[in-house]
Amino acid sequence: MENYGIDILVSRNSENVLFLSGYWPITGWSLVVVPLDGDPILIIPRSEIDYTEESWIKNIYVYEAESLEYLWNPYSFIADILRGLDLPRGVRVGCELSMETIATGSIAGEASYACIPTFDLVKNVFNATLVDATPLLSKLRMIKSDHEVEKMKIASKIASIAVGKVLEAVREGLRESELAAIAESVVYSEGVGFEGRVRRARGFAFVMSGVETSRAWYPFNISSDRRILRGDPILLEFNVCADGYWIDITRTWILGRPTREQEDVFHTLLEAQESVYRSENPGLNASYIDRVARNVIRARGYDRFFPHRLGHGVGLRLHEEPIIHPLSTVNIEKGIIHTVEPGIYMDRYGLRLEDDVLVLDKGVENLFAEYKFLSLSE
Amino acid sequence: MENYGIDILVSRNSENVLFLSGYWPITGWSLVVVPLDGDPILIIPRSEIDYTEESWIKNIYVYEAESLEYLWNPYSFIADILRGLDLPRGVRVGCELSMETIATGSIAGEASYACIPTFDLVKNVFNATLVDATPLLSKLRMIKSDHEVEKMKIASKIASIAVGKVLEAVREGLRESELAAIAESVVYSEGVGFEGRVRRARGFAFVMSGVETSRAWYPFNISSDRRILRGDPILLEFNVCADGYWIDITRTWILGRPTREQEDVFHTLLEAQESVYRSENPGLNASYIDRVARNVIRARGYDRFFPHRLGHGVGLRLHEEPIIHPLSTVNIEKGIIHTVEPGIYMDRYGLRLEDDVLVLDKGVENLFAEYKFLSLSE
Repeated sequence: MENYGIDILVSRNSENVLFLSGYWPITGWSLVVVPLDGDPILIIPRSEIDYTEESWIKNIYVYEAESLEYLWNPYSFIADILRGLDLPRGVRVGCELSMETIATGSIAGEASYACIPTFDLVKNVFNATLVDATPLLSKLRMIKSDHEVEKMKIASKIASIAVGKVLEAVREGLRESELAAIAESVVYSEGVGFEGRVRRARGFAFVMSGVETSRAWYPFNISSDRRILRGDPILLEFNVCADGYWIDITRTWILGRPTREQEDVFHTLLEAQESVYRSENPGLNASYIDRVARNVIRARGYDRFFPHRLGHGVGLRLHEEPIIHPLSTVNIEKGIIHTVEPGIYMDRYGLRLEDDVLVLDKGVENLFAEYKFLSLSE
Repeated sequence: MENYGIDILVSRNSENVLFLSGYWPITGWSLVVVPLDGDPILIIPRSEIDYTEESWIKNIYVYEAESLEYLWNPYSFIADILRGLDLPRGVRVGCELSMETIATGSIAGEASYACIPTFDLVKNVFNATLVDATPLLSKLRMIKSDHEVEKMKIASKIASIAVGKVLEAVREGLRESELAAIAESVVYSEGVGFEGRVRRARGFAFVMSGVETSRAWYPFNISSDRRILRGDPILLEFNVCADGYWIDITRTWILGRPTREQEDVFHTLLEAQESVYRSENPGLNASYIDRVARNVIRARGYDRFFPHRLGHGVGLRLHEEPIIHPLSTVNIEKGIIHTVEPGIYMDRYGLRLEDDVLVLDKGVENLFAEYKFLSLSE
């Protein structure tokens, strides 16, 4: 915090509250206050108190969110709590000024975030100069703790069960949206309570099939009502969240017998991923990781069909730092988890494979290596 | 806009882009620019161009979102487009300064929103004084056009099919999360392509059963892995979105034979809703609408078990203006769509019914009146 010129950090966006406290907010109206000197504080609406069990911040201030006695206005309650804290004034307070993208919570249809009213409140209470805490939080979030890796492995296990059910169900005539719905449905029904360790689970799945796969990255994450035909490629983009921790994977299969070119493309993707897994180590530049994969694809003549970056960080949100792109400048560090998602998009079809890998002291661990085959027999 | 001191409106949050243009963004990096004098303009990433078919703003500027040639940074492209527009400088520009809650899009796992970088960009390009456009947009959004009502009726039809499937599936031993997953799954698989008119559909369902229903509003929208038992109340909170338009409904049933008290509570809720539907008209105060329902519940002796507001607006987001609360001051107008959701939460169980009603010239139209019975036989 000192290096970023922050005396007090006030975080409200739920993924950061989870990161800083271990408690995953429900409505998005909870705050974490981290002073440079002193213990961190958690501020929550009373309705969420049962969900703070997992918080390692035990200094919790509660406000009444709902009442018939007044119109809902949490700002005044939050301001009162902040004013009562024994913290310095006239200081530099870090807020999420530049996030502009937020992971959705378990409610999923609506997300709350810090913007001007929250920033003004903090500014007034602390007589503060506001500093953007987003770069600090992004940097800290990049490196996963053992606790976080464990959470993501649980999300990965749930995803694995769901993909299994998708493959059991897949057949000619099913709609893209039906297959995607199966994947999501399994995450919800099997994920909640999974191994007695998951309280809230959410999956978002997108299936693109046939010629739609040729533009599966542009626009991305759309399922249509197209019915799957024999011989079609089926691309499943799958985002799974367990108690606030995400994984992000993609598989592509052919329903029936692939063409020779499709097989070549598929093995090129596999080889591109494998070459990354063989060569990735802490200290390397992210652009180098992108190049390792891209060189494999170039050697096979497909590089102009791989128009996007190789990957991105993942964890408290689907897309985090670091970016694995030809122009990335960040270095790979131990504890980073990032996607490795080479894709080759031809005129009439596209294939993509996406795993999530954890960077170790030496080498990487693949958190989702399953279901990597091309042909689905019916 | 003039009344709100806004010379140019620059909106980025997807629900407002949809409201202002008819096009529902995918990634959340599209903007609508509405000058006080002159035609509105839409700015989009190229990847979403096929999704602007529904836009009534035909003046569309496109930027390249993805490239291997540069790191993704839409701000510079957006700034370039804005700079090239023939619009006045040194003016008051309205932005979404105080929204702090956003409806999620079809991608659902991640939502993008306007914050300091977007505000600064707008400020710099227009040499502008920024004004909060949130109150103006909230007020405009309150009144639904025929087009919007039509969209919400489609969402309601999809919800109806999904609730029907939930009731076909319900039985002792199913988990809350399994039932909720069925509801969501039907929205995805049947909603995409529904009547040839829906491109993207999303449902978020939450099932609370047994004693959990006694606190179904506090915390809200949680499904657990609890297995449903004979005699349990089953509360389904269901949010359905079709192409960016939401409906928000709740039903509660008893699996088997209700107690006499449960029947009395249920009929009290029905009567509270009916008394609202009989008396609601444009020109009445929202607090009066709350009181009509609350008086019915008071007359039956249950008022201290109804601790929350009666409802809220719904449409481009689950929770919009107006708030239907004892202390609301806003007047009901023709074209408002709001929930009517009385709930009575006893020690061992709670029941809630939630419909969405459209205010007409005279009276209201209930957009979701189905499945209102208490007892489910197995």
